[in-house]
Amino acid sequence: MTGLFISFEGVDGVGKTTQVERLRAYLEAQGRTVVVTREPGGTALGQSIRHMLLHGVDGAAVDIAPRAEALLFAADRAQHVAETIRPALERGAVVITDRYLDSSLAYQSGGRELTAADIRSLSMWAINNLLPVRTYLLDMDPALSHARLQHDEDRMESAGNDFQTRTRQAFLDLAAAEPDRFRVIDAAQPVDGVWSTIREDIDALLAPMTQGGA
Amino acid sequence: MTGLFISFEGVDGVGKTTQVERLRAYLEAQGRTVVVTREPGGTALGQSIRHMLLHGVDGAAVDIAPRAEALLFAADRAQHVAETIRPALERGAVVITDRYLDSSLAYQSGGRELTAADIRSLSMWAINNLLPVRTYLLDMDPALSHARLQHDEDRMESAGNDFQTRTRQAFLDLAAAEPDRFRVIDAAQPVDGVWSTIREDIDALLAPMTQGGA
Repeated sequence: MTGLFISFEGVDGVGKTTQVERLRAYLEAQGRTVVVTREPGGTALGQSIRHMLLHGVDGAAVDIAPRAEALLFAADRAQHVAETIRPALERGAVVITDRYLDSSLAYQSGGRELTAADIRSLSMWAINNLLPVRTYLLDMDPALSHARLQHDEDRMESAGNDFQTRTRQAFLDLAAAEPDRFRVIDAAQPVDGVWSTIREDIDALLAPMTQGGA
Repeated sequence: MTGLFISFEGVDGVGKTTQVERLRAYLEAQGRTVVVTREPGGTALGQSIRHMLLHGVDGAAVDIAPRAEALLFAADRAQHVAETIRPALERGAVVITDRYLDSSLAYQSGGRELTAADIRSLSMWAINNLLPVRTYLLDMDPALSHARLQHDEDRMESAGNDFQTRTRQAFLDLAAAEPDRFRVIDAAQPVDGVWSTIREDIDALLAPMTQGGA
């Protein structure tokens, strides 16, 4: 594969969408083909799965079992990789995804029934081992990201601050375990500061490709 | 768990539905609580998943990736176990399911991308290791079962006779690998002959429960 695969991670409200769009514009200005995508719901099948997870079936809430939920997230991801990500990388595009398997690891592994190892092996099977070359973790105190979301009603705010704090820590632990893949960026700083960190890193990543690689 | 968990397997057209209903009536006449269920689609979530698999999304066909398809079948099964099968067994019921994980193993394992070991480990994780005590495999030459289905349009007949022959052999191989769990029954004989084999076996299975066990 000749493309470049990048993911953004972090809890809601840390500014992932803004940075994804900056990165897209920056790379397109260089003449590169960029595919921006997201999880959950990056494909038509994924949107249908996401709808089931959020709204139940036929408008009726369903008490989805933990294993079924994990398998549905994994199915969404498997389709996303097979239909969108892998073909784009094979065409040589830069693929930027807003959330990927680390979100499942951070959000789902805190449950009672499933272990982190369960979720990891399921996710790795779903993606057929296709990991991003780089993952930008936008990190921020949950009290700040929560405040940013006050006008956004389509969020699971009821999950509460404890949950956000645990999820943030789970992301940081994942980053510590894979320092080559992750860059942890302080998302409490101004947007331009976050962006300049990403830009410097992406320039370094792309240098070998630009200098006549595959 | 105090209940009894039974599955029926075999290709379409071998008469599973007829035998499931006979078994239900026989056990209910003894005063037992019987829960009859099926895969795919044994729950509301499962029906929604089954609809996606058969009809695509929003009426448009979707080319579902092999891993996504396997994960969706597994999600259906995980929900089925958690919502229907396990609670019924815990209440002491006899649970009879028309198809279970062996159908996934027989039908999906013949593909190009996924191995039988992949499908088995995914299925075992989905069901959290809850296997039936007994599985009745109704076995028949595909030419005969195909003829029985001629008036039934909601079938994948286009898959062809080679596919049916391979699937039949896959079921027989599964049965040979687990002789304690499986009973292979010649489904080409008259319905009453099939039923008397099942009745004798179920009487033997239930004898310990009837004689004052848990």
